[in-house]
Amino acid sequence: MARKTGDIKFSKRGEALIGQEMFRLLDLSRNLEREGKHIYHLELGEPKNYKGAKNYPPGRVINKTIISLLNCDVGYTSSKGLPSLRQKLALYFSENFAKQIKTENIVISTANMLIYQVLDIICETNDRVILFTPAFPSYIASCRYIGATIHQVPLSIDDGFCLTKNNIDKAFSVKPKVIFVNSGNNPTGAVYDQETLKYLLEQAIEHDSWVVSDETYGMLSYQKEYFSMINLEYKKLVVISSFSKVFNIPGYRIGYAIADPIVIDKISLSSSTLYSSLPIFTQEGILDGISIIDNFAKDRKKYYKKLSNECMKILDKSNYLFYVRPESAFYLFIDIRKLKIDDKLFCSRLLEEYRTVVTPGTSFGYEGFIRASFCGNIDDVKKGLRQIVLFAKLLGGKENI
Amino acid sequence: MARKTGDIKFSKRGEALIGQEMFRLLDLSRNLEREGKHIYHLELGEPKNYKGAKNYPPGRVINKTIISLLNCDVGYTSSKGLPSLRQKLALYFSENFAKQIKTENIVISTANMLIYQVLDIICETNDRVILFTPAFPSYIASCRYIGATIHQVPLSIDDGFCLTKNNIDKAFSVKPKVIFVNSGNNPTGAVYDQETLKYLLEQAIEHDSWVVSDETYGMLSYQKEYFSMINLEYKKLVVISSFSKVFNIPGYRIGYAIADPIVIDKISLSSSTLYSSLPIFTQEGILDGISIIDNFAKDRKKYYKKLSNECMKILDKSNYLFYVRPESAFYLFIDIRKLKIDDKLFCSRLLEEYRTVVTPGTSFGYEGFIRASFCGNIDDVKKGLRQIVLFAKLLGGKENI
Repeated sequence: MARKTGDIKFSKRGEALIGQEMFRLLDLSRNLEREGKHIYHLELGEPKNYKGAKNYPPGRVINKTIISLLNCDVGYTSSKGLPSLRQKLALYFSENFAKQIKTENIVISTANMLIYQVLDIICETNDRVILFTPAFPSYIASCRYIGATIHQVPLSIDDGFCLTKNNIDKAFSVKPKVIFVNSGNNPTGAVYDQETLKYLLEQAIEHDSWVVSDETYGMLSYQKEYFSMINLEYKKLVVISSFSKVFNIPGYRIGYAIADPIVIDKISLSSSTLYSSLPIFTQEGILDGISIIDNFAKDRKKYYKKLSNECMKILDKSNYLFYVRPESAFYLFIDIRKLKIDDKLFCSRLLEEYRTVVTPGTSFGYEGFIRASFCGNIDDVKKGLRQIVLFAKLLGGKENI
Repeated sequence: MARKTGDIKFSKRGEALIGQEMFRLLDLSRNLEREGKHIYHLELGEPKNYKGAKNYPPGRVINKTIISLLNCDVGYTSSKGLPSLRQKLALYFSENFAKQIKTENIVISTANMLIYQVLDIICETNDRVILFTPAFPSYIASCRYIGATIHQVPLSIDDGFCLTKNNIDKAFSVKPKVIFVNSGNNPTGAVYDQETLKYLLEQAIEHDSWVVSDETYGMLSYQKEYFSMINLEYKKLVVISSFSKVFNIPGYRIGYAIADPIVIDKISLSSSTLYSSLPIFTQEGILDGISIIDNFAKDRKKYYKKLSNECMKILDKSNYLFYVRPESAFYLFIDIRKLKIDDKLFCSRLLEEYRTVVTPGTSFGYEGFIRASFCGNIDDVKKGLRQIVLFAKLLGGKENI
């Protein structure tokens, strides 16, 4: 049928938008809550600070944000980010890593946005991007949106979801334009070792590929010492990170990229085009937090390590669910393949029948798994995990009849 | 010469980024300030609240933001925006405009970002976009970035920069995909009348073109009653606005779009892909401000009307500078053509020799003019305008020798 005048048709890019499944689930479950139903939230990587969960933001970050608001710092600042925050970060990184980081190597932006911004300034349509899967859904969403071709290199649960030289060789065999690395991995919690990451960078240099290293969870590595790619030298290396998880302030929407100044200038031009600048007051708050970031992260790691043990104990009661012990952050990537059920169907039934929200592995490019986040309300997390165990028992029991 | 391994090359879209000239000027002038020089800032539309300028944000907006921060509302919310804010706005618009606006007609995002988001979900590369010039630089930057073809329809100073039926007919003669309207115009201050805007919409319906109406300055119309396109019905009409200017909080980065729910859902998918969600605490602050927005705007209008008169008096001392009395907001778009100097050169010399920053007309697609913003520090504004008059006298005097 011919289109009528006024019929809405979107652009190719518009049609390629998939968003983030977690936020769709959030909206869906909030609607159920408005109907008066209690929902166990294990879908978002959103550190919560009520009902037993001790994920408070640092007092000084909040206080300094408030002082800045009282001071009416409600104007614009540089598209590159608050100059004093960039300077402070340069100092912090230079002190903590093997190479000198200058202010001009740093741009402040929202970390999720940086994934898009970096991809978009590098890639033409159909350029090849490597994602080691399971991979954070925003990489997939951004690649689809800009029309890049995703080449998935699946990591194996048998390797503890760790990156291997074999995976890296496979990745470079397709001559990728960009390769994404995410140590302190979301959703698996895997932390990659120094030798592997150095090998990856050598290969990238040899193949002239860009490397985007998302290190959002790096500072929350509790089973292993974390190796940051900030230590390595390469013109086409972009390290992205965020203050959301380490400071329990995902709603601040502040992260940063570290790269060659030419890349930083280009990202900043993208920020200027897209959103002008970020708020001053949120950046002032974070600036004041940098001096305590190491100590704060230390506490967080202790907390999540203990909590991960408690969560694993709940899952251990199931004969149908498998996982790899997370080495960082607050996700459990749970193998439900023994239940022989589609992971999306598992998730929608889990919400409907067990009022528990988790994210399907498919959203991470990895079928047969689900991601449960344990940074929310602790009661919800534990009850939610028990609901998963119950549902698995029901499904597994049926299977066995 | 062949490129070496590691040489940085950006994508076509990356190369097409131009950013916003005002933010480049801001960075440039801040560098001069760090060298100890005093600079008169007339470049940004950033309402300032010190040294005599009474552009304070509403106390309750700031207070509620702080309460929300103290309440640790630092998590994620819906990609569509805080549900209670969308509901409140729906109620507000339904009460104030000729048609019913529902929550599903509203999405919260940063207004500057919405310009990009809307264009990107509508336009393919080379689709035609109409800009009535002078036009806000972000329209130009977003069009270039996504590769749309800009068709400029210049408005005339002789018409007081008002949109005419003749301009509209010219615009539709190229069969545009999208047509941008910006009543409460930046940079001219012109406010378009109801009849003209209705004619524009009729033509858009007939030609099946999208209309994007940027109404950021609509509530600051002080010489004329403002007519909002929210009153009109069309599936392909998207109204964009912002709380930045009416509440003196540009750093909050909160605006909204009103459109068909199908369009709203698509924009929200774009937000989910790009930046997940906006902060809760800033949206809570604005939510609390909606009940006083009309009274607050009334005060603002009185203030800017008076100030615009004082600014015009300063410019009236020059025989070389011309302008049209602004009908809204806080910009003066000044004709410097009599000086026979390139407007970009005028601006760079004005900064170097007269320590005054204004934005060249070229950034608005309109040569031979400069934009001076009078929402900053009042001393700066008045001294800056005097510097412009002095510089014009110097240039004009030379011309006459």
